[in-house]
Amino acid sequence: MAPRGKLIVIGGAVDKGSFTEKNYEKDIEKNFNFFERGILKRVLTESVHKIDSRIEVITTASQVPEEVGNEYLKAFSYLGAKNVGVLGIKTREDANAPEIISRIEKAGIIMFTGGDQLRLTSVLGGTAFHRALLSRYTYDDVVITGTSAGAAACSNNMIYQGSAHEALLKGEVKITSGLGLINNVIFDTHFVHRGRIGRLFQAVVSNPIALGVGLGEDTGLLITDGNKMEAIGSGLVIIVDGRFINDTNITDIELGEPISIEHLVVHVMAMGSLYDLDTNKLKVHKVIKEQIKNAIPD
Amino acid sequence: MAPRGKLIVIGGAVDKGSFTEKNYEKDIEKNFNFFERGILKRVLTESVHKIDSRIEVITTASQVPEEVGNEYLKAFSYLGAKNVGVLGIKTREDANAPEIISRIEKAGIIMFTGGDQLRLTSVLGGTAFHRALLSRYTYDDVVITGTSAGAAACSNNMIYQGSAHEALLKGEVKITSGLGLINNVIFDTHFVHRGRIGRLFQAVVSNPIALGVGLGEDTGLLITDGNKMEAIGSGLVIIVDGRFINDTNITDIELGEPISIEHLVVHVMAMGSLYDLDTNKLKVHKVIKEQIKNAIPD
Repeated sequence: MAPRGKLIVIGGAVDKGSFTEKNYEKDIEKNFNFFERGILKRVLTESVHKIDSRIEVITTASQVPEEVGNEYLKAFSYLGAKNVGVLGIKTREDANAPEIISRIEKAGIIMFTGGDQLRLTSVLGGTAFHRALLSRYTYDDVVITGTSAGAAACSNNMIYQGSAHEALLKGEVKITSGLGLINNVIFDTHFVHRGRIGRLFQAVVSNPIALGVGLGEDTGLLITDGNKMEAIGSGLVIIVDGRFINDTNITDIELGEPISIEHLVVHVMAMGSLYDLDTNKLKVHKVIKEQIKNAIPD
Repeated sequence: MAPRGKLIVIGGAVDKGSFTEKNYEKDIEKNFNFFERGILKRVLTESVHKIDSRIEVITTASQVPEEVGNEYLKAFSYLGAKNVGVLGIKTREDANAPEIISRIEKAGIIMFTGGDQLRLTSVLGGTAFHRALLSRYTYDDVVITGTSAGAAACSNNMIYQGSAHEALLKGEVKITSGLGLINNVIFDTHFVHRGRIGRLFQAVVSNPIALGVGLGEDTGLLITDGNKMEAIGSGLVIIVDGRFINDTNITDIELGEPISIEHLVVHVMAMGSLYDLDTNKLKVHKVIKEQIKNAIPD
């Protein structure tokens, strides 16, 4: 059954791991990145109650949860959304607390901030929070969104570490179970600025059932019906399809040795392009300009 | 007609744009990178007279030609090759001087250092030096090799600038004519550490006749008969084949807007893997260990 919820995964902000901006208060118009602002606006417009939606911001991934939480409160407020709470879940005990679950049950938008994705899965995985999240996504018209670590954790397999420079040495890319909102996809983030394509190549060659999805900075995917992906934001989404790999040395070499791969299929998606996870087809969107104009918050 | 010469293109050293190493004299064993040393050894063994070959080092690309020239003298000397000269061609007048051409006519190995590839093409392009180089490569069993800028300049089309971060914005990647030792290929270098795959994607989508070849640091390709490419060195070579692109927005969007591309074919080549430019087939090499051992200079 296709999930009723919508999933919006975001590759992170341009300069930092999280949404954090310098001199945020002082100069909100300039510092609040134009396009990430565009993506947050889209998060609101995709929700049932738009700016009146109840929004819960999950800061579990962050090492500075209060700071990050406050920034999202301000960011949403700037876009007109005032019904926002921060859920600073720090422990598995928190993640099983009935008052937390009750807030998740009532949210129209659930947003995961950046930080360390391994905190998301190790703290939330298998808890009442996690079950409530999956249930809401499956049965309700809710928007679930994550940026950076919050995006990486959405798929069933999750890259949590691995040097970009050594990403094609066997074993360098560390993968574990994600939150499983979507299967057979593996998201990587900060994809353009951190030169991470090798991480995705290694993840895909080790089991081509997983489609590699690299999200650039200020770039996201809106996923509806669990299978239709639309690129949003200013940058690019890279798709790595390993189903046609004919040959590789990955089972022949030892840990730390370089991987060869024959025949990966790669797509590049800019704003408005659509990818269907069932048919594995990309539809290239031709007109960018109009969409950039429409993405500007009023 | 297949060229009789061999071409060895190298992606550059790990830390720097050129071959330069810190405290070179003091600590040659440690500082002289293991694998680039391996590649230089291969340059010698591929030449007819091995360590007795006459080697000419072309420092035209570098802004510190004397320094770089001296380092190559030491590097080759360390490997037992003492018959080495540095050709510090700085102007088009130099590049037409009969004494320079006479040295090119007698060399067994011609090596282009790193620096700025646009210096190589703007100083050497169309000169007597350039004609002599093409003639030697076509008719003689000579080794022509270049690292970094020296590699980028070898193909008929050459990327000379373009931010890695914005490489998939239309027009961001700057391309011009290279030295044309090989056609229908476009080399990019420092490929892994500088996250440059987007540059190659843009180069390839704008005309898929060119095969994109990204050379990692301490990694090279030995090209024989003008069409057989063997990966050498410690890192990876990425091949981007655009012949199967079905759709793109590149002609619909304006300069500075993000490019979408459907269906690039990508291969990853580690040491020993072979790619045939005529058949576009990759042969994955399975055993790495033995080759790593053999690459260590005695």
